[in-house]
Amino acid sequence: MAKLEEKKVSSKKAFSGRLLKLRVDTVKLPNGIRTTREVVEHPGAVTIIALTDRTELVLVRQFRTAAGQVLLELPAGVPFRGEKGERTAKRELEEETGYRAKSVRKVYAGYASPGYSDELIQFYFAKDLKKHKQMTEEDELINVELVDLGLCLDLVRTGRIRDNKTVVGIMIARQIAGGDW
Amino acid sequence: MAKLEEKKVSSKKAFSGRLLKLRVDTVKLPNGIRTTREVVEHPGAVTIIALTDRTELVLVRQFRTAAGQVLLELPAGVPFRGEKGERTAKRELEEETGYRAKSVRKVYAGYASPGYSDELIQFYFAKDLKKHKQMTEEDELINVELVDLGLCLDLVRTGRIRDNKTVVGIMIARQIAGGDW
Repeated sequence: MAKLEEKKVSSKKAFSGRLLKLRVDTVKLPNGIRTTREVVEHPGAVTIIALTDRTELVLVRQFRTAAGQVLLELPAGVPFRGEKGERTAKRELEEETGYRAKSVRKVYAGYASPGYSDELIQFYFAKDLKKHKQMTEEDELINVELVDLGLCLDLVRTGRIRDNKTVVGIMIARQIAGGDW
Repeated sequence: MAKLEEKKVSSKKAFSGRLLKLRVDTVKLPNGIRTTREVVEHPGAVTIIALTDRTELVLVRQFRTAAGQVLLELPAGVPFRGEKGERTAKRELEEETGYRAKSVRKVYAGYASPGYSDELIQFYFAKDLKKHKQMTEEDELINVELVDLGLCLDLVRTGRIRDNKTVVGIMIARQIAGGDW
């Protein structure tokens, strides 16, 4: 087994924006090699796997500038400074979809793209939903869609869902629905 | 249904590195609001869901600077300029793990984090593997691990797998093993 840990030699800030920062680290590998790593710094995200009483998954359809297209995804958002994940999950679910959940539980946390980004996505499961009014921010235009959980895998297979966190959420929702998570 | 498409007003390059670029777009929403979007440009990635004859998933353990830790993941890499995804899949599988696959097939493509990154990950499935020699690049230190597919979900549930593309791959591998993908 090779030793794997790198040691940071130096770090240079290259960008600081509204959401993201970017730095370039120079690192030394256990084999002595030096190289650089470009790292996007992200505040971290929370996404919500919300199931209605009829076993429908609550999804949002929105335009994504980076992808250059409209995508169908789990609702998600970034915590306010100091906000707990559970609070973010409830807030984003209600803002983006109008569904209010009395309680949510954390079911998984994973990196979106650890080759270059520190973004960790926390996944919360929500059920016993009550429909209220959608209250998106003025720069968020979102359509809500309920999809029968049994049909979700077909949407992935046929390319109508093309967002990895949403595929992870579908898998976890299927396990939860089967009593196995 | 609200109209969703944004219109790009202007775009400013903010960073250009070895792997990544970053730009800041000013966009106009269908409701007339103007806002900015920070977009990471990534060349796109290929990841490989490789199953041995004993239904083990071929995983790699490596240090990830962005995550600040060692992670257990599907093998993956970035295509050479002009390289087809199928070729990248075979090449990266062999370089990172030593396993050679006669043929691979594309089973899914999804965005890693479409809120700010254009990275699209193409997923290829590989079986009928032959073990050769691992040939990583000098700045890649990777340990190979074979994990029984039946145990993989437990590794996700218990936090020993914390990479979203790997969770997507596990789900697809389970569907393929069940004859349903």
